[in-house]
Amino acid sequence: MREAVLERIKPGPSERKRLQEVSVALITRIESMAEGCGLELKAMLVGSAARGTWLAGDHDLDVFLGVGVEDDLEKALELARRISPDHREKYAEHPYIQARIDGFEVDLVPCYLVDDAAHLRSAVDRTPFHNRYVKQRIAGLEDEVLLLKQFMKGSGVYGSELRVGGFSGYLAELLVLCYGSFAAVIEAASLWKPGLKLDLEGRGRVEQADPLVVVDPVDPGRNVAAALTLNRMLQFALAARTFMARPDIEFFFANPPAPLSDREIEALMEERGTLPLLIEFAAPDVVEDVLYPQLRKAESSVNALLERKGFSILRSDVISYGNRAALLLEMEVWRLSPACRREGPPVWQADHISRFLAAHPKILSGPYIKDGRMVVEEERRYAQAADLLAAELASLSLGRHISASIRSGYKIYAGVELLAIKDDGYRIFLAEYFQARCI
Amino acid sequence: MREAVLERIKPGPSERKRLQEVSVALITRIESMAEGCGLELKAMLVGSAARGTWLAGDHDLDVFLGVGVEDDLEKALELARRISPDHREKYAEHPYIQARIDGFEVDLVPCYLVDDAAHLRSAVDRTPFHNRYVKQRIAGLEDEVLLLKQFMKGSGVYGSELRVGGFSGYLAELLVLCYGSFAAVIEAASLWKPGLKLDLEGRGRVEQADPLVVVDPVDPGRNVAAALTLNRMLQFALAARTFMARPDIEFFFANPPAPLSDREIEALMEERGTLPLLIEFAAPDVVEDVLYPQLRKAESSVNALLERKGFSILRSDVISYGNRAALLLEMEVWRLSPACRREGPPVWQADHISRFLAAHPKILSGPYIKDGRMVVEEERRYAQAADLLAAELASLSLGRHISASIRSGYKIYAGVELLAIKDDGYRIFLAEYFQARCI
Repeated sequence: MREAVLERIKPGPSERKRLQEVSVALITRIESMAEGCGLELKAMLVGSAARGTWLAGDHDLDVFLGVGVEDDLEKALELARRISPDHREKYAEHPYIQARIDGFEVDLVPCYLVDDAAHLRSAVDRTPFHNRYVKQRIAGLEDEVLLLKQFMKGSGVYGSELRVGGFSGYLAELLVLCYGSFAAVIEAASLWKPGLKLDLEGRGRVEQADPLVVVDPVDPGRNVAAALTLNRMLQFALAARTFMARPDIEFFFANPPAPLSDREIEALMEERGTLPLLIEFAAPDVVEDVLYPQLRKAESSVNALLERKGFSILRSDVISYGNRAALLLEMEVWRLSPACRREGPPVWQADHISRFLAAHPKILSGPYIKDGRMVVEEERRYAQAADLLAAELASLSLGRHISASIRSGYKIYAGVELLAIKDDGYRIFLAEYFQARCI
Repeated sequence: MREAVLERIKPGPSERKRLQEVSVALITRIESMAEGCGLELKAMLVGSAARGTWLAGDHDLDVFLGVGVEDDLEKALELARRISPDHREKYAEHPYIQARIDGFEVDLVPCYLVDDAAHLRSAVDRTPFHNRYVKQRIAGLEDEVLLLKQFMKGSGVYGSELRVGGFSGYLAELLVLCYGSFAAVIEAASLWKPGLKLDLEGRGRVEQADPLVVVDPVDPGRNVAAALTLNRMLQFALAARTFMARPDIEFFFANPPAPLSDREIEALMEERGTLPLLIEFAAPDVVEDVLYPQLRKAESSVNALLERKGFSILRSDVISYGNRAALLLEMEVWRLSPACRREGPPVWQADHISRFLAAHPKILSGPYIKDGRMVVEEERRYAQAADLLAAELASLSLGRHISASIRSGYKIYAGVELLAIKDDGYRIFLAEYFQARCI
């Protein structure tokens, strides 16, 4: 099976040759351009392409443009802009350039050439050290890394972006270095529990209580697995355990679900008897790593509002598709009796009682005393979850960009109204939501 | 107003005379009967009739039959049986006789004549000491006691039986002795908070954390207000406060509510939009002080079951009427989505996970991981509150007599089915339930 997988994911000789040619040409070109304008600059291929650990067909190149610590990153950025007419400016901690060159997606990232990882000036300055560390040790283990990355892809845990919260390529490489092979990583991971700490160089100074701590060998105070969530860590551990029990090539090549049809959605709603509510709005124009944490914050604010008012949620999720974003709330209880109970102050607090009664003038039953407190029963303001959302959504704390987007317009879809949205990305999201499986 | 109230509640000269004649004749007869059969026995009129603090028309007499501590209570009981052909045997801590004599309801209670309240052989032996204590101090304050008792009746807090959980006559008398007058009791009570301790003789040894502690002057380790619930204490305090703000004779003479008609019940259900569920069964043949604690226990078991399974209750209450008893549960949420979530063990507990998954074979979504645990979504066993009750009521812990009664048959009425019961006592209970007011 190992060979069958590698056959599909290991770059062939022509792909290797092409990558080699393109990257050498690019680096040569950058350095000569730099020389031409008197800029002292070192261009470096980093990442999986540099280490021989890229998956076949992955045409991404990371090229770092290193300048002296006394120099100006802006000059390197300006040079990067001139490399290709087909480029976009992006922004992480610093600005960088994403360009399309000879069929490759190239990130051109300015950085400082620091002499020691202890003297970083920015997070990207660490990457060349990572590159050097892995390159010096990975020879002969490249296939192990490829297998592990593909296994992580197949079980949905590959990618350290915040939308995924999974494993980065560097983390996969360190796991192979740590355990020695793909099989050894799988065997170890099958027994993982939260609180595990791995330290290749045995000099960690990591203080965080993350579910998994992998001490960065080039920066002992940093956890390489900081972005890994508890659930993704355990999802990987479970996949490893299941794979060991009955190995199957399917673990590496999971089929993405097809978009749900109208009939399929209707059948699921009928079977579950829940009420799905979808709050849909324009996706704010920010990168995913900014958007997803805000969507998660919005999700938990909305959940808290609904639960606080007596409704109950089976499950919820967030999505962005095309230029739209949405929160999906699957309601277990979405309608409450019009009559509701309001608990007031202890009976002996005469002043508070007066204010409480004045604030609740239209009483259905009461006031009566319960557990020493004054209680009234009155008409509930919102007996339907959708009405509550429509009335109070805009005043919730939803994350800066999402709040702005919601204020400029949103729509609530309830039940079969969800069928009105035909977008494939949205329909695939619904499929993943309803078919959620970790085994 | 004081005079207007007293005019309605103070026994007139003819009532006093009649009570005097009947009780003297009764005591004489008992003692001569005892003498006739060689029993050394002292008959004593105790309670409000003995102290001049009975409310007009209250034709209850308490006559205690005291024997020496070496003697046999059974002989006194046998004598009591012979007093009247029209009698019933009752049982509190000891058996006693309830008889109808010359238009009076007479309790004939055997007790031991102990020389000191510190040497009680049973709870009833304390009563003659209470009688003596109050009689020696109450002269001139009888009207104050009458006003207070009537005020307590009017505000629904009079009666120390467990169904009411309110103030006993003796407690009302002690409050008058403590504060000096009806008005002074009201003024003080309007500021009452839980945790108050009153000790007329200043030698209390009461340890309980009851809401109100009134040290028994004849037995300093006993709280006279032990049966008073927090809510009744505060209901009285609130009534006192409200009466002080706007005195009205209505406080003394509240009109009992009329039984609700079918139309009224339907209108209330329409307005509240809740679902009332009534669990009705044969009332076990026990006295109220045994029945009501069991009904309350059953109520809280049923509430806990419903809340545990995701339903929600606006309010509930218990009732006995005729030879039936019932729990009323007014549901805020009485139907849930068929789909429900089941949280399993932490993902790394492989053995537990296997058992969990084996126990949940029919899965709608999942298994997936949430907060580090395995979760499945499956079909809920009972999506309707009434179905859950029907299935699990018999296996709940409901109190011994109620469990037996439920096992031999019960009926659940939901919504408009409540109209099927026509009993006036039940319809008055519904009126009190829906019109619950403490102000």
